[in-house]
Amino acid sequence: MTELWLIGMGTGHPGHVTMEGMAALRDAACVLIPRKGAGKEDLAHLRHAILRDAGAEARVIEFDMPVRDESQPYAQRVSLWHDEIARRWQTALADAPEGPVALLVWGDPGLYDSTLRIAERLTPAPRLRVVPGITALQALTSAHAIPFNTVNGAVTVTTGRRLRDHGWPEGADTVVVMLDGQCSFQTLAPEGLHIWWGGFLGMPEQVLEAGPLAEAAPRIVQTRDAARARHGWIMDTYLLRRTAE
Amino acid sequence: MTELWLIGMGTGHPGHVTMEGMAALRDAACVLIPRKGAGKEDLAHLRHAILRDAGAEARVIEFDMPVRDESQPYAQRVSLWHDEIARRWQTALADAPEGPVALLVWGDPGLYDSTLRIAERLTPAPRLRVVPGITALQALTSAHAIPFNTVNGAVTVTTGRRLRDHGWPEGADTVVVMLDGQCSFQTLAPEGLHIWWGGFLGMPEQVLEAGPLAEAAPRIVQTRDAARARHGWIMDTYLLRRTAE
Repeated sequence: MTELWLIGMGTGHPGHVTMEGMAALRDAACVLIPRKGAGKEDLAHLRHAILRDAGAEARVIEFDMPVRDESQPYAQRVSLWHDEIARRWQTALADAPEGPVALLVWGDPGLYDSTLRIAERLTPAPRLRVVPGITALQALTSAHAIPFNTVNGAVTVTTGRRLRDHGWPEGADTVVVMLDGQCSFQTLAPEGLHIWWGGFLGMPEQVLEAGPLAEAAPRIVQTRDAARARHGWIMDTYLLRRTAE
Repeated sequence: MTELWLIGMGTGHPGHVTMEGMAALRDAACVLIPRKGAGKEDLAHLRHAILRDAGAEARVIEFDMPVRDESQPYAQRVSLWHDEIARRWQTALADAPEGPVALLVWGDPGLYDSTLRIAERLTPAPRLRVVPGITALQALTSAHAIPFNTVNGAVTVTTGRRLRDHGWPEGADTVVVMLDGQCSFQTLAPEGLHIWWGGFLGMPEQVLEAGPLAEAAPRIVQTRDAARARHGWIMDTYLLRRTAE
């Protein structure tokens, strides 16, 4: 593999892919698609649909995503898992045709995604091209038709784990939370906070909730549980903002 | 105007527009295009090129952007300017065909953009649809092929004005700065900071610089001055990260 193209695919709406992304899929020699096993979570069907829409003639090569070794401490577990994914890419591509290899990356390849860190492990290092994609941040604010920031305001983008461990970020008036499997907004004092929440953003299954945190929090937990029960998995994101009063 | 569609157009690469954005342009009855007067800054040519690429048959209606009254205090000046833009939209659309009105918005309509705030001023209020777009955040990290965040890390997105007034945001390890006309990174103590900078992101004029802040800062100021002199204007963004050592 001499060239690796990481193409942001957006958050599940086939229309989130950019014109640049579609052209890259047509120009690629092959496309790597991860298989995560049972369940809808791997969204391999969405990647295949995008390739069809693009009119891509690239060779499609699938590989099985490894399972994380949950017995290891967090940082080591993630690092070993990335090593193993890099190995599987190289094995899967052993007989690949010459030319650029493309990977469709959920959201944007730079935002809370490990693909760039996995790519760093490849030897010899391929030339890297990143095609930006619609992130969950934009999918969330567009679904609610709200601004990301207040006028001249700052926004902290953080994770559910950090919100639980460190509370409301010092000085922030807007906080966007990613990778939160535990509705960590429940750990905050809700007074003066408004929440805009979304699950399956951009997808036909999209669910939205918004309101003052005190009243919206139990509603979101319920909506989220119901949606997860219905689909077997869920991916959600939310934005919290201090209200003026 | 009963429906207003705000379509994120990305940062100047015609390929940044998403498939959803292209379809919306084809479905719109008319498209509003701002004219900012002399200079390249209005990028009306880029909007027209995107409409051609989309095969849009919408009526194109141009309007002159008002000039801000610099004698007013900042907040009032911005508010009056937004009022005036809303009035001009309504005047320009007086004889518009029935159906959805589309506006191509630089980057994403939610991110450091006033279009949503201007749309709030319309009476009667149209139904609003927001089509997400590639932001300068993603254009920057993809151009440098770097991650937006560290593993489980938080990112503060802020403005040049805030960086000058408040310094490095408390507790942040990554900071992205928008709307900075003054290279405000020069006001920070550079030790332990790395910068990734980009001007004209995604455009043929794109310029990139990166390095430890102490050595990169003067280089960026010089590159930025030269690019601005050559093109008559510039739009730039940068990411700062604390380095491990």
